[in-house]
Amino acid sequence: MPKKNSKIIFKRITLIGIGLIGSSIARRVKRDGLANHISVSARSQNSLDRAVELGFADTVTLDQEDSVKNADLVIICSPIGAYSDIIQNIRLGLKPGAIISDVGSVKQAVIRDLSPHIPEGVHLVPAHPVAGTEHSGPDAGFPELFEDRFCIITPTKQTNKKSINQVTQFWQSLGSKVEIMEPNHHDLVMAMTSHLPHLIAYTIVGTATDLEKTLANEVIKFSAGGFRDFTRIAASDPTMWRDVFLNNRDAVLEMLQRFSEDITALQRAIRWGEGDTLHELFSRTREARRGVIEAKQEKMYD
Amino acid sequence: MPKKNSKIIFKRITLIGIGLIGSSIARRVKRDGLANHISVSARSQNSLDRAVELGFADTVTLDQEDSVKNADLVIICSPIGAYSDIIQNIRLGLKPGAIISDVGSVKQAVIRDLSPHIPEGVHLVPAHPVAGTEHSGPDAGFPELFEDRFCIITPTKQTNKKSINQVTQFWQSLGSKVEIMEPNHHDLVMAMTSHLPHLIAYTIVGTATDLEKTLANEVIKFSAGGFRDFTRIAASDPTMWRDVFLNNRDAVLEMLQRFSEDITALQRAIRWGEGDTLHELFSRTREARRGVIEAKQEKMYD
Repeated sequence: MPKKNSKIIFKRITLIGIGLIGSSIARRVKRDGLANHISVSARSQNSLDRAVELGFADTVTLDQEDSVKNADLVIICSPIGAYSDIIQNIRLGLKPGAIISDVGSVKQAVIRDLSPHIPEGVHLVPAHPVAGTEHSGPDAGFPELFEDRFCIITPTKQTNKKSINQVTQFWQSLGSKVEIMEPNHHDLVMAMTSHLPHLIAYTIVGTATDLEKTLANEVIKFSAGGFRDFTRIAASDPTMWRDVFLNNRDAVLEMLQRFSEDITALQRAIRWGEGDTLHELFSRTREARRGVIEAKQEKMYD
Repeated sequence: MPKKNSKIIFKRITLIGIGLIGSSIARRVKRDGLANHISVSARSQNSLDRAVELGFADTVTLDQEDSVKNADLVIICSPIGAYSDIIQNIRLGLKPGAIISDVGSVKQAVIRDLSPHIPEGVHLVPAHPVAGTEHSGPDAGFPELFEDRFCIITPTKQTNKKSINQVTQFWQSLGSKVEIMEPNHHDLVMAMTSHLPHLIAYTIVGTATDLEKTLANEVIKFSAGGFRDFTRIAASDPTMWRDVFLNNRDAVLEMLQRFSEDITALQRAIRWGEGDTLHELFSRTREARRGVIEAKQEKMYD
């Protein structure tokens, strides 16, 4: 049994889902002794076996309700589309005073799906660690994933201050910088910084692979010119991302519409040889890069 | 004076333009003793001064005609839009038997602009090293830039075999893997692998910075979710890229049209909640990533 640790905010933590994010949380908690017990639940026995082999789970079970018993903190780390089922499965197992949180990339939909089913005395604290790689599964995680990355907490109207503080401290202990944000604002910001870039990357990689075979093979071969970066983003987990787009529809469609208008304007500039229009935009976008570097968001995750 | 070197294919090399690519060539040639003399010409005295300070130029001059005198190999390393003026400036200075090459990202337009002005006895060997970073200027170069990267040579109907072989050997000595390709095919492949990705990256970074100020600032702050990668691409040299789009118009518009159709289809799938359509595409694009990794194009340049 681990020794008592002043860093321990939650004695027993349950992770539902043990992919890239879940297993990174587990590895960090284990490495730094941030809990006395980690219980893991997942949909497949394979994932559970792997969690045991990798040594970051104290107990594992396919039974979600069983997994949350006595947990002080439950973190849902599954694709967003599974949340409705999960909360139905676990609600009767949650102990009074437990905190339920998550790591989903969309927050309004998560609150919509979870909050009606939260039992009296249980606290919902939705969270989103803005971190990831293109890899998925229990083997893909690593304890440093959240280091110096933002974790955005989007409290509901019911969330109390104490729970927010505890979840904040927990994510800080994982290395994150915590921000508090309104759920709808979160979804709008993420639609632009994350969801639209992923949609575009998936699209262009799809467009390229639809080319006649010889050409498509050459696109892969000569991908160093820029395309390569898109293939990395477009290798992200399909189920997770399907659920993101289905659950942040309005914000994504809004940002996509703006993007489409802008690229149509550039298309016209290219067609009519309007070099100044192109040069003006290309100069302006350089500034954004400086902003990213100054905001210290340039520590790559791979 | 450098000692005789069996690796020397061209005794005297002239570089016209000394930005990222030109200065990377110069650094590599200097480091490995691949020529006896490097002459550098550029449009600004500042760049020339910097080339001298950085130690990779033997002689520098603002006079392009003067710079090519006695050169065995002249490489134009300027934005494509400047080629017409450059060839007019240097043609009378070229010695018989000299090879003139370049590093431009578009090849049909380069051949269109250069070949009518190539003097009798001078050999045009257009080339395109598929390598780069988002940085520009003489300080941005480094000798390993071309290591294990492709360099595509697109001979014209007039180019003789000996010249092709010499330029091939030269790029191999810089660390490149050389491919021979038809100019029009090169332009089509690059439209997809490089030009369209850059256009998209420039566009989305522009779209983001056009958002109301608070939101735009937050996009920068939380850029880790995917947007960050686009800002890197969109920080590339504006003049170089303006000239690429103006000079590879048809191929870029063709690929952009395909992309637009595909993203419109995804937009519709999101609007109508067609999760299967999304999931099918997102699974398929993962394969492309495996292709890139197998093609060993995943050695990042930064």
